[in-house]
Formats: sequence, structure tokens, C-alpha cells
Amino acid sequence: MDIKKFRVEELENLCGDIRTKIIEVVSHNGGHLSSNMGAVELIVAMHYVFDAMKDPFIFDVSHQSYTHKLLTHRWDKFDTLRQKDGISGYTKPSESLYDYFVAGHSSTSISLAVGAAKAIRLKNEEGSRIPVVLIGDGAMSAGIAYEALNELGDRKYPVIIILNDNEMSISKPIGAISKYLSQAMAGQFYQKFKRRVERLLDYLPESAMYMAKRFEEGFKLITPGMLFEELGLEYIGPIDGHDLRAVINTLQTAKKLGKPVIIHAQTIKGKGYIKAEGQFEKWHGVSPFDIESGEPTQIKKTQKSATTLFSEALFELAKEHKNVVGVTAAMPSGTGLNKLISEFPDRFWDVAIAEQHAVTSMCAMAKEGFKPFVAIYSTFLQRAYDQLIHDAAIMNLDVVFAIDRAGIVGEDGETHQGAFDISYLNTVPNMTVFAPRDEVSMKYAVEFAYKHKGTCAFRYPRDSFLPCSYQASPFELGVAEIIKKGDSQKLFIGFGNGVGRAVLCEQLIDENISIVDLKFVKPLDKKTLKKLAEKHKEWYIFSDSAKKGGVGEIVSGFLADEKIDGIKITSFEYPDEFIQHGDTTKIEESLGLLPYQLAEKIVKK
Amino acid sequence: MDIKKFRVEELENLCGDIRTKIIEVVSHNGGHLSSNMGAVELIVAMHYVFDAMKDPFIFDVSHQSYTHKLLTHRWDKFDTLRQKDGISGYTKPSESLYDYFVAGHSSTSISLAVGAAKAIRLKNEEGSRIPVVLIGDGAMSAGIAYEALNELGDRKYPVIIILNDNEMSISKPIGAISKYLSQAMAGQFYQKFKRRVERLLDYLPESAMYMAKRFEEGFKLITPGMLFEELGLEYIGPIDGHDLRAVINTLQTAKKLGKPVIIHAQTIKGKGYIKAEGQFEKWHGVSPFDIESGEPTQIKKTQKSATTLFSEALFELAKEHKNVVGVTAAMPSGTGLNKLISEFPDRFWDVAIAEQHAVTSMCAMAKEGFKPFVAIYSTFLQRAYDQLIHDAAIMNLDVVFAIDRAGIVGEDGETHQGAFDISYLNTVPNMTVFAPRDEVSMKYAVEFAYKHKGTCAFRYPRDSFLPCSYQASPFELGVAEIIKKGDSQKLFIGFGNGVGRAVLCEQLIDENISIVDLKFVKPLDKKTLKKLAEKHKEWYIFSDSAKKGGVGEIVSGFLADEKIDGIKITSFEYPDEFIQHGDTTKIEESLGLLPYQLAEKIVKK
Repeated sequence: MDIKKFRVEELENLCGDIRTKIIEVVSHNGGHLSSNMGAVELIVAMHYVFDAMKDPFIFDVSHQSYTHKLLTHRWDKFDTLRQKDGISGYTKPSESLYDYFVAGHSSTSISLAVGAAKAIRLKNEEGSRIPVVLIGDGAMSAGIAYEALNELGDRKYPVIIILNDNEMSISKPIGAISKYLSQAMAGQFYQKFKRRVERLLDYLPESAMYMAKRFEEGFKLITPGMLFEELGLEYIGPIDGHDLRAVINTLQTAKKLGKPVIIHAQTIKGKGYIKAEGQFEKWHGVSPFDIESGEPTQIKKTQKSATTLFSEALFELAKEHKNVVGVTAAMPSGTGLNKLISEFPDRFWDVAIAEQHAVTSMCAMAKEGFKPFVAIYSTFLQRAYDQLIHDAAIMNLDVVFAIDRAGIVGEDGETHQGAFDISYLNTVPNMTVFAPRDEVSMKYAVEFAYKHKGTCAFRYPRDSFLPCSYQASPFELGVAEIIKKGDSQKLFIGFGNGVGRAVLCEQLIDENISIVDLKFVKPLDKKTLKKLAEKHKEWYIFSDSAKKGGVGEIVSGFLADEKIDGIKITSFEYPDEFIQHGDTTKIEESLGLLPYQLAEKIVKK
Repeated sequence: MDIKKFRVEELENLCGDIRTKIIEVVSHNGGHLSSNMGAVELIVAMHYVFDAMKDPFIFDVSHQSYTHKLLTHRWDKFDTLRQKDGISGYTKPSESLYDYFVAGHSSTSISLAVGAAKAIRLKNEEGSRIPVVLIGDGAMSAGIAYEALNELGDRKYPVIIILNDNEMSISKPIGAISKYLSQAMAGQFYQKFKRRVERLLDYLPESAMYMAKRFEEGFKLITPGMLFEELGLEYIGPIDGHDLRAVINTLQTAKKLGKPVIIHAQTIKGKGYIKAEGQFEKWHGVSPFDIESGEPTQIKKTQKSATTLFSEALFELAKEHKNVVGVTAAMPSGTGLNKLISEFPDRFWDVAIAEQHAVTSMCAMAKEGFKPFVAIYSTFLQRAYDQLIHDAAIMNLDVVFAIDRAGIVGEDGETHQGAFDISYLNTVPNMTVFAPRDEVSMKYAVEFAYKHKGTCAFRYPRDSFLPCSYQASPFELGVAEIIKKGDSQKLFIGFGNGVGRAVLCEQLIDENISIVDLKFVKPLDKKTLKKLAEKHKEWYIFSDSAKKGGVGEIVSGFLADEKIDGIKITSFEYPDEFIQHGDTTKIEESLGLLPYQLAEKIVKK
């Protein structure tokens, strides 16, 4: 769609069509609603003023890029949004040449823009290409954004940053920066005042110039952009991010400046869909819903999600023990910590998108005798990898990592899969790594974590556990649980949600197979495994995790260490690739990981 | 030493004694000289005004904590500094109750202070305890510091942050924040001016109050602390950090405020040792030296360090290929990139302590067709773990991770060991992981990295490679090299510096043992390994890396996958613990990893 020839009125109509399309598709497929509705005019203006084929369009976290996708030859395919083999919910260069970069984790955009700007300068393309960033205010809390601003403000590459300020991020805004931006919103008065003073200064005689200069600087600094100006960036704003004409004019001005510019645009999240406007977390990522009523159209699952189970167990624990505290990094409802934050606001915190700080600050609390639960998704905990080693594990502090979204996460896809945590945690000394397998064992996991001395981590899947018909027993450090004894050579070893997978698979095979719930990958239950090795010579590993460095390799390493020979191990973990987006069952099917597929493989052997 | 009863003059004398002691011990043992010399008064004042047993003293990165150690019952043992079983070069609670926290990586202090402050509030100890942070200006560039400030400025816990501003960090100061602080230094004039204006305002009639308020705000903002004040912190400074009386008074004032305060203290790095004063990187971490001449007392090793070899090879490559670019995060000479930065300032960058941004910005350069080399120590790359997955590997971009300080690093100890990189990289899809073993193969490694399509990483040790008498061949993707064929059942598998270890070990054993240089742990050379499995049934793994998830487990996993039975694997990697500080050879000896020790173990079997 070549919108460059459109008149502004036509562009405004287009914005309406885009909103209708987004509501229609998201109401069917689920997806990110409010962030996309809020960014329509900003993205249309980006495409009007710049050229996505030439100028790097960098969408921070990129869940707000639907308008961009619709404008770049993906309108007709857009109803496959977030479905397997369909349009991704994030920018993805392998999907379209118009997508500059993969993004799914927050706050990388300014770094990418700095890199792109360095490249543009080296290629002598400055003046004909410029990186354009669209970043939400919520993403400004993460350290990497600041690290990038620190270099950008110093070296001053031409980069345009559109700060999409809806005072919301995913959940409620948190932190000094957020407060700062709200004040800036109220700052338009100062700007007018400043302009009046500046006009006045023009009339001052030369002799008063020194004084005037001081005044001018004083007043310049009370513009809302102060903070950014101090960091060396040109600041324009705040502007109304839904006033298309204003946004276009501002982008055109910024384009000519030849230096780093931050454009502070105020928008309303959910703009154009009345049910979502002004709402906080609820309309951020949504399941299919009825447009008229706003109600979800999918039948609610009767089984509780692992997150809910965790949240309930932690709530009970926190009621009982005053030393239980906890933190989330901008995912209060995603991690189930919202209830605890509202019930115990002096003990549970949302620290905004700031995984590093979340972890390290809780380490100090552990040092002070508290028992912190750090609830972060598997994929986002990667952001705090150094902190969990350097600040938690070295001192073996009593910090608990509650790792949500372990395993395949479905429609969010490759940037969000919780595949690597077992591998990256196994190597960390002092770390205990375990996993609940179902509703009952989640309670036991939380209890064990509370009592355990030292750093530990447990993981659980998105949505609900696979059904597991065996009654779980409490966790005991490094003790596995034989949940079914069979006479077959085969042994099924499950870990976490993999136990349910093993159980379902066993029911499909006409053999009496032993099943063990490993419970701990670190430390391993060497005694039980050794004993099982005497009887069973075919071991099958079930775990929702990457095969590389995963449960299978850990068990193989143990057998090698113990010089136990003659065991054949087959691991049903994830292949060594980034796993794509789509309905979790469909994705598992494509990987051959559904119980019936595994049963077939085992029987055919 | 109870210095609370000292008069200021006595404290000043004490500062002199401390400096003499530091020079004396560091000139013998090596260590961090200039940062410690610069912080003497600040730390003496901390101990005078606060109580290290009660108030959390949080030393950022903590290599500047020698004065603190000397003041807390470690004067007599101080000559064991950085030696095995001696005093650590960093704060370490297991060494002394006066040490609040382990720190060796930069910029965690403000996070820790926020956590401690939360704990203090929950325990109702506010007013009687307060966290006191000492942080250098160089550490302010890292994202985690900003994440912590963002929460602190919002929730306003009482915390005292002493910003030790020597405009230097480890190497030259970089970034907007650094420039900002320099301007602040020149800001004292504004403060005086402001005070005069404020006095004037006192005399204005009530009716002018509105106008006056505006002026006041305007002027408030031109104080140097603006940036911090905008983030919600009280700012005091700049003060002379060597004026003990001024520092004490300021700390006493800050203590009473009951809110977060940043004290901006200006100091001279190396203060009191004329050879080091005002010097940049050179006197940061030093080897033993002659106090009189400042010259190193250890005989320079004739063999080049792996860092030098890397630097030379990359320099040649950069001369030849214009698309070669690179980055370091505040370690220009540590990584050998200094020469490239000065020779090619538009292609090689130091981005300050900002590993996350370093990685992500280079990913965008790769997208633009450049070939970035990211030179970061193994232990610090942990800080960019998410970025190397999310921004490099998902798109399989041509980014090269040159991982320095892989293996045991010696005197820096547990926070700096390069033990985990193989484990944390192995699980990452698209990642190729390899290692040179000696001088010749380092050149081949750099060449291979340049030609390789996709994300890759290679690792090399601190100091020089172990000697390896076999001629290396160029790298070929996933191809191992049999460097010696023997008739024994035994097979030695070396990786990186482990190859030299295997060779040395083999020479001590009276058997003709085959040695293979694995070259790649990802992808493995399955063909060669399978063939070797036919002939050799006892495999010994040599690699400077953690055993958990390390080369041994990777090879065991491969054998399990291939259902190859009957191979006994023994891995000589690091045990599952944090490895302490001390001379590398002594530490390796304590772990039983010296070639003669390994040979004994092998023969005794």
C-alpha cells in the first residue's frame, strides 16, 4: 500500500480501517489489543514520512507492530495472526523484508538503533537513511535502554525515537522515570511560559547577556525533555499521538535535524475500542472475545493454570510466614503475584521491566533474613542470568526462583519459549533445580522452596499441567519418586510437566512400564537412578525443555560419571532450534511430542 | 580499630598509614591500586559516621574496599591479599562479618541497597540502620544501576549513595552520564548563583510568589544534581572526596535526611602514589611493582597472552576487511581491543560497562552486513545472556563472541572465573562454539569466525596457552583434529586450552595415547567421535570449564544419542562449586587439575 500519496484525511480514514481490522482479527485469534490500537497513527505517520524498506523501523518488543504489518503486504494474510505457520505477533525478518529485526523481549530498540546508525555512518548513508524507533514508556525502565541512551547521547548518531507514552506499559506504571514522564505531560504550560521569557530576552541589551544566558538555561531545563536533554538527546513534545497531522509534522521536523531526537507522544492505549480504552493490564494480551460485549468467547478451562496454583500456594505461605516476600518484573498478573501485591503491598513488589534489579534487590532481602520468591518467566530470567549467579548463588542465599512459562508458550512463539532454563541453571553451583508436576505437587514445591536452605529454582508450564493420575508426595531434597512400578525393561523418567506426558504416553502402550518423577535435576537422585539402572535398560526422558544441556544430557552425564553401562537413553525434549509460534498442541504435534506420537516412536523401536 | 573516638587529625594520619599499607601490599601481591588509593578518605568517613556491623556497607564491584578491610580486623592478614587462602580482593561475607555482600561484577550496589532498605523497613529498623553505597562513576553506565535508581527514586527508601567520581572508571570515561558528571563538576558556580537568587526571593512580596516559584524551579534545575533530582533522589555535591572533614560533615547531614541521597564526591584515582595519580587504565589492576620506579618486578613472560594473540589476529583481519567491526564493554586493554579502537575509531568501540547494549548494538551492525567481534570476558558475558540469545542467535546473525578469560582467572577469584560459558552457550540454537588451543590456532580461529555464516563464539584463557607441541590446522565447521594417534585404549579429548593440558599429561604416561583436539563443542564432530569410539573405550576429557553442562556431559549426551555403548568417560573439568581466588597454578593444583596430578589419576585407575 503506497500511502505516501494519500492526503491526511485519507490517512485518517485508513487509521479507522486498520483499527477495525485489528479488532476483528484479535477478537478471533487473541493477541495484543490495546498497544496496537494506541499506536495506529504513530505507525501510519512513520510509513508516511519514512520508508520501511530503507529506514530501519525498529519496534521495541514489537507486539505493537500490527499496523506496520497491515501496511506492508500482510493485510490479506492477517487473519492467520499468531496461528501456526501464520503471521507472527512480532516483527520477523523471515516473514517480511519490511521487518527489520526480531523483537519479543522489551527495551532492545535503542541499542539496535545505535548499531544501525553506526552501520549507516560507516556506509556513508547518513542523510538518506535513519533508524526510527517506536518504544513504549513501559520499556524505558529496563537497563539496556539506558545503556543505549548513554552511548547515543554521547556519540549523537542521527536516530529518531518515538516514545509512545500511554502511562501504562503492560500493567500500572512504576518507577521514577514513569513519574517523570507524567510530570512532563503537565509541562506544556512551562513551555509556553519559557517561550514568552525567551521573547523577552531578545530585547535585553548586550550587557545583560550573561545574566540572560543563565536565565535561558534555567528555563530551558524546566521543559519536559530535561532528562533526555541532559543525556544529550534533542527532545520534542509532548505531542498528541492520535493527531495524525501533528505526528507527521513532528516526524518531518525530526528527520531534518541530523541528530538523536526523542519525540514524546501521548496516546491512549486501546484507542478506538471503547471497552479497552483507559484499561490497564486486562486488554494488553487477550484471548478471543466478543466485540459487542467484550466477553471472552472461549470456554474457560475448568482446570487451574499452573500460575494460579503457584499464586494460591504462595498466598497461603505468605499469610503464614511474615518473612516471605516477592517480586515480579512488570508481570503481576502473568506471574500471579498481583493478588499478593495488593494484599501485602509492603512485602511484594512490581519493579517494572527490570529483571536484573528484581533479582539483585531480592538477594539483599535474603541476606537480611527474608525469603524472597522471584517470579519471572523462563525466557525473561535470561535477562538476570548474571545476577542469579553473582548475587544469589555465590553466597548460596535463600532466594527462590519461581520460573513461570517453562516449556512451549504457544502463540507468542520463538522469543518467548521457556526452553533453556534447565540447561542454564544446571551449571550454576549451589543451585537446586526442581519442578512440580501437578496441582498437589505445586503446593509441595512452594513449601519445599520455603524450607530449603540455599538458592533454588522451580519451573512450571504456561496454562495447566498435563493430567497426572498419581498422588504426589512432598519434595525432599534430591529425592525422586517412583510413581509406578512395572516389569518392562523400559523406564519413563519425567520432570515437571513431563511427568504427565510420560503417564499419558504409558497408558497408550501395551506394556507395564515403570514411571519415575525425577523431581530434581539438581541434585539428581543418584541412589534411585542407580537402582533403576539395574532393572531397566531402556530409559525415556520426558521434559518440556531443550535437549541440549537438558534432562537427557544431565542423566547421561550422571551415568557416564558413575561408569554405568548398557543403558539406552532416548530423550523427548526440544530439538536444537528456535521453536515457532502457534497453538501449543499444534506446535508439540509438529515436533512429534504429543503422547500418541511418542508412544508410536517407542513401540516402533 | 575503633576510629569513632579519633579526632579528624588522627583520622587524616590514619589515611596516610592506610595508603602506605596499600602501596606496600599491592606492590608485592598485585591488585587494584588506583581505585583503592582514591577511596581512602571516603571509606574512613563511612566508618567514622556509620557502623559496618549494623549499617549495610555496600561496595560496588568492591575492588576499592581495601581500606574497609584494613579497618575491620584484617590489617595483619592483609599481606595475604589475593593469595590462595588469603584475603580476597573483593568483599566476602565468608571472610568477615563486616563484609555485607559478595561483589566482583559492577553496578549491583544500588539494587542491593534497595533490597536492604526494604528489609530494614519491614523489620522496623529505619532510623537505626541505613544502607551506605560506595559506587564509582564508571559503574553508573550499567543498566542495573539505572533499574535500581528507577525504583529507589519512586519509593524513596532511606539510602545513602556515595558517588565516587574520579572521571575514570577502569578506562576512559564514556557516555552521556559521564559527560553529565563532568559538567556537574563545573556547576559549583551555579550553586552559588542559585543561593544568591534564593536569598533575593525571600524579600519578594507575597503577590510575586507565583513568579518566584517559577524562577526558583528554574534555578533549582541548574544545580549539578538535576538528573538525580529528576529521578527522585536528593543530591549533595560535588564535594572534595579527599577533604575528610567535608566528607564526614556531608555524611552526617545525609544520615539525618531519611530519604535517598546521592553524595557526589570528586576524588583523584591513585591519590597518594605519584606514579599512579591521574593515570588511566594502567594503574587500575596491577602486577607486583617496584614502589620507587613504578616498574613491574616480575619478569615479563616471553610467551604472548591469548588476549595479545587475539588482538593481533583481529588487527590483521580488520586491516584486510573493512566490514570487520567490534566492541568492548569497558575492557579495552583487558580484551586487547585498545589498539583497534585507536587505529580504527570508527569501527571499534568501547561502550562503557554495558554488556547488554554492547551485544545488541552489534547485532544491528551484523544485520547491516558488518562482521562484529564482541570481545567480553566469559564471566561478564553472563550479563548479556538474553541478548546473545534474543538479538543474535534467533536471527542467526553473523556476530562473533570472542570470549576472553575462559577458565580459571587467578587472583580475582570466584566472581570472575570463566567456568560456565560452554554450558550456557551449548543450549542456544544456531550457536557455533569452538576454541583455539595455541598461538597458531588463534589466528585460524579469528579467520574461521570471520568466514563463518551465523552466530558463533570462541573462548580462550587468561594469560598464555599451555604449550602444545603439535602443529595446528585451520578450523573447519564441526571438524575435530586427531593430533596424535596411539595404540592405547585410552583417548584424550582436549578442548581449547585443555588440549595443551592433555598433551602435557600424555607425556607423563608411559603409554602411546591418542589425542584429539575437539575444536568444536557445537557442532560436535560426530563422524570422528564415532570412529574413535570403535577403537578407544576409555575417554578422558580435558577442558577449562565447569563439568556440569560442560564438554564431558556434551560428549556423554552425544554417545547416548547415538546409542554407543561401552565407553568409559572421565571428565577433568571443574567441580560443581564456585572456585576461590589465588594463583592459577595453585588453584588448579588444589583441584587436582595439574598435568602430573591428572596423569597420576589416570595411571592409578
